[in-house]
Formats: sequence, structure tokens, C-alpha cells
Amino acid sequence: MSVLPSSVEKVIEEFGRLPGVGPKSASRMVYHYLRSSNKDASKLANALIEMENSVRTCPKCFNVTDKEVCDICSSPLRKSNKVCVVEEPLDVVAFENSGIYDGVYFVLGGVISPAEGIGAEELRFPQLKRRVMELLEKEDEIEVIIATNPSLEGEATAGYVMDLLGDLVKSNKVRVTRLAMGLPTGADLEYADRLTLKRALEGRRNI
Amino acid sequence: MSVLPSSVEKVIEEFGRLPGVGPKSASRMVYHYLRSSNKDASKLANALIEMENSVRTCPKCFNVTDKEVCDICSSPLRKSNKVCVVEEPLDVVAFENSGIYDGVYFVLGGVISPAEGIGAEELRFPQLKRRVMELLEKEDEIEVIIATNPSLEGEATAGYVMDLLGDLVKSNKVRVTRLAMGLPTGADLEYADRLTLKRALEGRRNI
Repeated sequence: MSVLPSSVEKVIEEFGRLPGVGPKSASRMVYHYLRSSNKDASKLANALIEMENSVRTCPKCFNVTDKEVCDICSSPLRKSNKVCVVEEPLDVVAFENSGIYDGVYFVLGGVISPAEGIGAEELRFPQLKRRVMELLEKEDEIEVIIATNPSLEGEATAGYVMDLLGDLVKSNKVRVTRLAMGLPTGADLEYADRLTLKRALEGRRNI
Repeated sequence: MSVLPSSVEKVIEEFGRLPGVGPKSASRMVYHYLRSSNKDASKLANALIEMENSVRTCPKCFNVTDKEVCDICSSPLRKSNKVCVVEEPLDVVAFENSGIYDGVYFVLGGVISPAEGIGAEELRFPQLKRRVMELLEKEDEIEVIIATNPSLEGEATAGYVMDLLGDLVKSNKVRVTRLAMGLPTGADLEYADRLTLKRALEGRRNI
């Protein structure tokens, strides 16, 4: 005799597959739907189906989009002499929400991580090179800004991109840069880790 | 120009309504689906629709079920001279998973909580009284075990049930009990809060 109806168990199981959601939180989420009388479960179901049907990857930057080519790649207002290489679509959202960048993006699809068994062949390196070559058709020089996370994996991935574009760098067609590392705004020096302090010291500037 | 397709924003919004899910976690969840190629989003969508279509409340105990009357209320193996009054369906799951209880349940639908604006009229008190009367048709005496959480609200609710069944208690047809309070297994006395220690001391037993 099962305690919960099988359809409820199934939803708990599906919620439990989500990152950061354990069996307890999954049960809580389902219970929220069982308690609410406002058809929230159907709303989520319909939103998921609509998303699956409409979302694709942009063939230029590999960000998610519901258009043929994404809004950023197809905008005449964005500079095509700067490509910001990020790990995931949500990193694009972070940049766009800040409104500080006017170039285009390239979504790698992750970082090289031997610990998690993710090798270079699982990321979009060939596509990145192809995209850079494509941009070089209308631009004389391109800046490739590596914006992977400031982690060991992010650093390794940055190194890989550097190698990948090595010949283009040598011929002065491509300049590869990396986001600055240092103390974040509001940080307390006392609690900063060694690597952050080291990077902050190395990157010090005249004032 | 929106950064994410509107269908993706919609799913983030719906996930964000879930308890304990903030905008960041909601984005992470959606990104999980955008990354996975195995139709996980459709699986969750279908499970939710199936749940909405099949789940109802048992007319006797108000637990969730996909039958006319739930498995517990309709089982001849469950004793009907004991009713365990709980706040939510997940509390029934906790008891059932432990396999320590052979009576029936009654799901109140919450606790009295002035802070959250939940008054007695929003809980299933009239239904509880009716259910107890119904059980008294075949049983001479009924034990109503109050298993609301050991919180101020849980205590207030227990008090309300006591009043509600006052006349039946006086006529010795109903006995109201409350789950024992004290130290949980594995607890460290040093870290126990004052109220728990007080309850543990008050409820001490001969060994």
C-alpha cells in the first residue's frame, strides 16, 4: 500500500532530479501544488511544454533563443569586434542585466573539468574557432574576452582557448583577454582567500 | 530586448513560486532543462498534468489520494478507534514510512497561526468533529492523537481540538492525547533548547 498516489510520487521524483533539490524539498514543492487551488501545477506544466517547443540554440553564439538567430547576434547595435566567451546561458543574463557590455557572446557549454569527466571535446571549441573566423570576415581585429568563472576549471579552459586561437593571436588578428580578478565590491580584506588577495596584489593599479 | 526567451522567463517565474525557491535557484533549475537533451522538462510537465488530473482529497481523512476513498481509510486492517490528527499530507507519509501506527488519520490542512492570518475557520475542524462522530457509530471509545508540530501554533491547534471535542471527552467517548515531547534520538543535551529540556524533564519516566 503506497502512502501517496503514484502520480504524486512521480512529480516528487521529477523535482528531485533538479540541481539542489533533495527528496524533502521535492516533497515540499509538490505539497505546495496539492494545497493550492489555483492550478499552479498546470501553469508550470504548460510553461515547460511551451519552453520545450519554442527554445533552440542560436547557431552563432549558442545561447538559448526562440528566434532563428538570437536577439544579441542579430542586433545591429552590438559590436562584432568583441566576443565574450562564457560557460553558460545564465552568464549572458548576468552581463546583460548589468548593461556594461556591447559586444557579442559565445556560450561554451561548460568548462574543462577532469574531476567531472568533462574533456575539451564536450565543449564548443571548434564552433568558437569557426565563429571567430566568421567575425574576422568583417572585422580586422577581434578581442576574445574569456569570462569563464575564476575557478581552476575556468582557468584551464581559458588556457585552452588561448591555445586554440594561438595562430590568430600570432598574426595579430585576435587579442585574447581575461576578466580581471581581485577583491569584489564590499569584500572584507580580512576574510579574502589567499588566491583572491594574490590576484588583487598582482593586478594593482596606479591611482 | 529581453535576454532570455519569454517562454524561459515564464518557467523561471513558475519555479520561483515554489516554497524555498528564489530567483537564482529557479534559473538554475531551468538551465538544467535547457542543458539536458533527454526531455526532462516534458517528463515533469506530464507528471504535473497527470497529478492534477488524478489527485483528489479523501472525503474521510482529507489526505491526498487517487481513489474514491484513500487506501488507509478503506483498509480493513487499520484500527478505526484511533485517529491521528496531522497538519499536512506529508505528515501522514512520515508516520506511514515509520510503520509504527495502525489507526486512521485526519489531515487538518494546517495550524492556527495568527501571525500568518490563518484562523480556525480555515482549518477542517467541523469535518474533524463529523469524522469523530462517524467513527463513534462503530466504536465505543475513540482516541484522538494530536500530532501537530511541537510549535506554538501546533500547541494552540491542539488546544482548539481539545475544546472542539470537549463534550465527547466529558462523556468518556473520546480520549485526546498528544505526541510526547522531549529529546530526539541522537540529540546532544548541551545543545538542546530550553523548552525541549523542560518538556523532557516534565515527561521523565521510571526506568
